[in-house]
Amino acid sequence: MDVLRRNNVTILGSGDGPVVVLAHGFGCDQKMWRLVVPALAERYRVVLFDYVGCGGSDLAAWDEQRYSSLHGYAQDVVEVCRELDLRGVVFVGHSVSAMVGVLAAEAAPERIGALVMVAPSPCYVDDEGYRGGFGAEDIEELLATLESNYLGWSAAMAPVIMGNPDRPELGRELTNSFCATDPDIARVFARTTFLSDSREDLERVTVPTLVLECAQDVIAPREVGAYVHAAIPGSRLVTLDSTGHCPQLSAPEATAQAVLSFLDGLR
Amino acid sequence: MDVLRRNNVTILGSGDGPVVVLAHGFGCDQKMWRLVVPALAERYRVVLFDYVGCGGSDLAAWDEQRYSSLHGYAQDVVEVCRELDLRGVVFVGHSVSAMVGVLAAEAAPERIGALVMVAPSPCYVDDEGYRGGFGAEDIEELLATLESNYLGWSAAMAPVIMGNPDRPELGRELTNSFCATDPDIARVFARTTFLSDSREDLERVTVPTLVLECAQDVIAPREVGAYVHAAIPGSRLVTLDSTGHCPQLSAPEATAQAVLSFLDGLR
Repeated sequence: MDVLRRNNVTILGSGDGPVVVLAHGFGCDQKMWRLVVPALAERYRVVLFDYVGCGGSDLAAWDEQRYSSLHGYAQDVVEVCRELDLRGVVFVGHSVSAMVGVLAAEAAPERIGALVMVAPSPCYVDDEGYRGGFGAEDIEELLATLESNYLGWSAAMAPVIMGNPDRPELGRELTNSFCATDPDIARVFARTTFLSDSREDLERVTVPTLVLECAQDVIAPREVGAYVHAAIPGSRLVTLDSTGHCPQLSAPEATAQAVLSFLDGLR
Repeated sequence: MDVLRRNNVTILGSGDGPVVVLAHGFGCDQKMWRLVVPALAERYRVVLFDYVGCGGSDLAAWDEQRYSSLHGYAQDVVEVCRELDLRGVVFVGHSVSAMVGVLAAEAAPERIGALVMVAPSPCYVDDEGYRGGFGAEDIEELLATLESNYLGWSAAMAPVIMGNPDRPELGRELTNSFCATDPDIARVFARTTFLSDSREDLERVTVPTLVLECAQDVIAPREVGAYVHAAIPGSRLVTLDSTGHCPQLSAPEATAQAVLSFLDGLR
């Protein structure tokens, strides 16, 4: 139970198919999935958790070194799966968690049977022959602002990340989620998120993979989705007719539907 | 994960206090707790499950002999606690599950730290110096009807058990729950429920215990609540200002409040 408490694990739903593990991104927690969980749990066993340092996790278990690398987050995933003796799960990772899933699948192939990457980006910074969407200075400035004034950064950035300015409650929900994170922990998670380059990990993915992108996403633009899709052998790309970086909140029906179609195709 | 799947275990909520395990009664499953779960999960870690043979449990794991005794159900409780490495949980058992909790606490004292008995009865049949509320013939007739026509029995009895005729949707919910149970399995569970006599187990309870009864309950009348309270050393009796046998559905706020007060008193 130690790991289950540490990562605030939630288990619900039932079904004969694979267990579905939902993993949140930077500045969020499992509540991020609240609108898609009912549809998934109706037909599948669903496991949710918070990375150490986020949501209802045990903050005392946080360790700067471990969580300065995406491998540390992947270790959380593997430990939760091990504690529950889960094998062959479908790991649904949002944003940076999509890459965490790739690392977890590599570290513990018996645990992860398939990946759903929701708005993934293996690298936010532009590079020669690669367009991540941000210049190196953009990211440095973003991190500097975040580090000097986390709450201000959250209030300004969350609505931009969420998109959908016509539904301001969505941006507020993400702002609140960001602001609920301990600033010192958020700083470390943000650096890890925005400075990691996991492009080379993609080609080593061997499990069935769905890349789920939004039609308009300032954090993970279409070029990045196409890159991830091209880099992962045999992956499937689905572009949701939605905007913003958090389709599980802004377009929950379409997101759940895409995940369920993929799940059904695995059986 | 085998036991967690077998018993369709759900884990949610978080908090520093003891883990709260919610156990359903005859003909029901964990959905019975749906109206009290949010208030409990806000402050406590909550574990729900279905006994084998009920709800979303693995029916293939059902065994007539094991589930012909309340000890078989208690074994489910102990195995779920063991699988999750839970110690000192607060076991909240409804109806027949209240007695299952007593047996589980005796079988695995390290697992159960406190009991909440919701509308308990250690014995439904009247006896010398004991008024359970039913004559031996009443129970035999009830079981005979149930065995010859389970759906008809359910439709007739569930609303009576639920009480609250002014809110017919409550009776319908219980009817639907009864009817969702496999009749062969329900027959065995009913015999075990209505014919068990666990009065002698009560005095061996050593953990803090809350007896939660309804002011009017045809299944577990006030005399029975008083008997349980008197038989369990140091137990606390709370009488809800509600009618019927299922206060977690008919009076969820009061039920949650009573459980929370008891939980807070344990800390």
